[in-house]
Amino acid sequence: MTIAVTRTGVPESKPSTVPDGAVPDGAVPDGTVQYLPIGSLALESGATLPEVTLAYETWGTLNADASNAVLIEHALTGDTHVTRGAGEEPGWWEELAGPGAPVDTDKYFVVSINILGGCYGSTGPSTPAPDGRPWGSRFPLVTLRDSTAAEARLADALGISSWYAVLGGSLGGARALEWAVTYPARVQRCAVISVGASSTAEQIAFAQAQTLAIRQDPNFNGGDYYGGPEPHAGLALARRIAHITYRSAAELDGRFGRNAQAAEAPLEAGSLAGRGRYQVESYLDHQGNKLVRRFDANSYIAITEALMSHDVSRGRGSLEQAVSLATAEFFVAAVDSDRLYFPAQSRELADALPGEVPVHVIEAPIGHDGFLTEIGQLSEQLRGNFFA
Amino acid sequence: MTIAVTRTGVPESKPSTVPDGAVPDGAVPDGTVQYLPIGSLALESGATLPEVTLAYETWGTLNADASNAVLIEHALTGDTHVTRGAGEEPGWWEELAGPGAPVDTDKYFVVSINILGGCYGSTGPSTPAPDGRPWGSRFPLVTLRDSTAAEARLADALGISSWYAVLGGSLGGARALEWAVTYPARVQRCAVISVGASSTAEQIAFAQAQTLAIRQDPNFNGGDYYGGPEPHAGLALARRIAHITYRSAAELDGRFGRNAQAAEAPLEAGSLAGRGRYQVESYLDHQGNKLVRRFDANSYIAITEALMSHDVSRGRGSLEQAVSLATAEFFVAAVDSDRLYFPAQSRELADALPGEVPVHVIEAPIGHDGFLTEIGQLSEQLRGNFFA
Repeated sequence: MTIAVTRTGVPESKPSTVPDGAVPDGAVPDGTVQYLPIGSLALESGATLPEVTLAYETWGTLNADASNAVLIEHALTGDTHVTRGAGEEPGWWEELAGPGAPVDTDKYFVVSINILGGCYGSTGPSTPAPDGRPWGSRFPLVTLRDSTAAEARLADALGISSWYAVLGGSLGGARALEWAVTYPARVQRCAVISVGASSTAEQIAFAQAQTLAIRQDPNFNGGDYYGGPEPHAGLALARRIAHITYRSAAELDGRFGRNAQAAEAPLEAGSLAGRGRYQVESYLDHQGNKLVRRFDANSYIAITEALMSHDVSRGRGSLEQAVSLATAEFFVAAVDSDRLYFPAQSRELADALPGEVPVHVIEAPIGHDGFLTEIGQLSEQLRGNFFA
Repeated sequence: MTIAVTRTGVPESKPSTVPDGAVPDGAVPDGTVQYLPIGSLALESGATLPEVTLAYETWGTLNADASNAVLIEHALTGDTHVTRGAGEEPGWWEELAGPGAPVDTDKYFVVSINILGGCYGSTGPSTPAPDGRPWGSRFPLVTLRDSTAAEARLADALGISSWYAVLGGSLGGARALEWAVTYPARVQRCAVISVGASSTAEQIAFAQAQTLAIRQDPNFNGGDYYGGPEPHAGLALARRIAHITYRSAAELDGRFGRNAQAAEAPLEAGSLAGRGRYQVESYLDHQGNKLVRRFDANSYIAITEALMSHDVSRGRGSLEQAVSLATAEFFVAAVDSDRLYFPAQSRELADALPGEVPVHVIEAPIGHDGFLTEIGQLSEQLRGNFFA
């Protein structure tokens, strides 16, 4: 991230590059967060969210007929920094996007948008409501369809009537799929990686545990904790639970086994409070504490609940009927060891899509996170299918 | 349970059947909780636990040469009531044990012992320390080897020098395995169901999340919550996390899918606080709230940490070397859809055991809990192998 943000993800101040509408081509360096006010948004829940802003980054140059625009959607706790730009900050999907990568930023105009409800610049629970106070507990439930509708306005503002491609992994893949089905004419190609057509009961169940971990933190205060102590313990616990599901049992066991953390002694404890940690506990502590430093707990709830809402068929008949609305060419992929978004769910989606859509398999023992760490395995298929 | 216990599992008063030593044969009705003080116990951690009591139940009659005694070990939140006795209260493993069942209580003298640290009558965090106050935060870490050592004293008191068989599932299976390796001469047959030779990194990781859920409850107070509000929300969250791992993704999705709970509306919420629930959330709420009514949060931590300690090889060389200490005939089984205690872990154990030990497979889509709900599938193999 090249922009200063507070610990809760609220930008300290909006930079001078904040546009009022379309960005003049080349006006801001690649990989810089920009902000677009998109007005008020009527939500699926029936509520209306006023004065919505979306944060986004771009790379490359939109061509004259706006035919080279690619939207890359981030996952649950991701930000807009897909790949590096003018600054040195590395991106989270550099094997996929960048100069010479499958999504070649020398050729395509790449856009990444912070999801509605997030804490990387888009309107979310930590940003000020019209009364100047953070939304906090008042932030309404936002679904993936709500964020897709918001993003369509940003595409309008950028002059992009149709994306050459929309792609993403995990929650990002769900966002991409929702785009292709909601706006068929605006999505020519759609890559749905490591996610199925809807959040399953198990995915909802793990998500509930995570949101409860935050809500039960004594500092949560119903979501109105800004300015006071924050529910860091709850957010870190949510992240631990999530992180276990992002990795395979084999990967955790291969890396950590039953080892004790450094000089700590898991079997030595005079009391309930005092036990040493196993290495895997220390590792998960680290993952939890790392997230706490960069993410807002309310946004974690908001986006997790948006992901729970993921169901491309909702109100659209059967899965086959729903996806038949899309006219995009599809690219579906899964990690073979994923135990949160099972490859079978990707297969179910692929089978429902019109035509013969294969499921490209990332072979990696790591589990779900392979969609990030092993995306390079799909480079040739992506070049062949989409970005020739 | 036929004995009155407080909500924290502390017996209101010890019944008159509390023995000072061996139970006179037939002195108490089958399936009645009895208590045996076993003195102080030196623990693996180096601490000493004074004035330990074990709660247990028995069924049937110990024969003259004490050659028909079978020990059935309960799982994480189980109690000693394996099967019904004089009372009407059904047991939790009636397909396995009872009159005419594979472990035929008309033929065998069946014993079940509440694990050390538990809340069903054995000494645990909720029972009074020598100063009369509940142990609470002062309760030391107890391992499976500690509970096995305690149980050996109970066997001594009952006059059982060698068990015809020791068996259990999940944590109960780990306890059975520890018995067979720690006291080879005292275990003639050993059935290890739905658990491996040690707790893996993943199992430790899920366990940590559960214990943290309790420890982070504002009512936890370091473990000293007796007499005040109890950490029910934390315990219920721990149970939710655990319960997800006890069931397969397919079983959760088949039962609940993405259905809303009754008239609740998961997508209708004016605020972060107010969303309706999905059916699977309501189900897990129910599971959590049910446990809270019958289990002590500190015991949940203590026994979970005992299970984290499960490693039959600790201090005994390789797994092969460790299990070669045992002289029992082994019976190993796993549920095919178990995603917490993978069948591969049962296979690893079976492969390490001396001789050719097959892994009997319970075929059930439910996941780990199949060791309870589908134990009947093993009836013939158990009769053939062990209880002929």
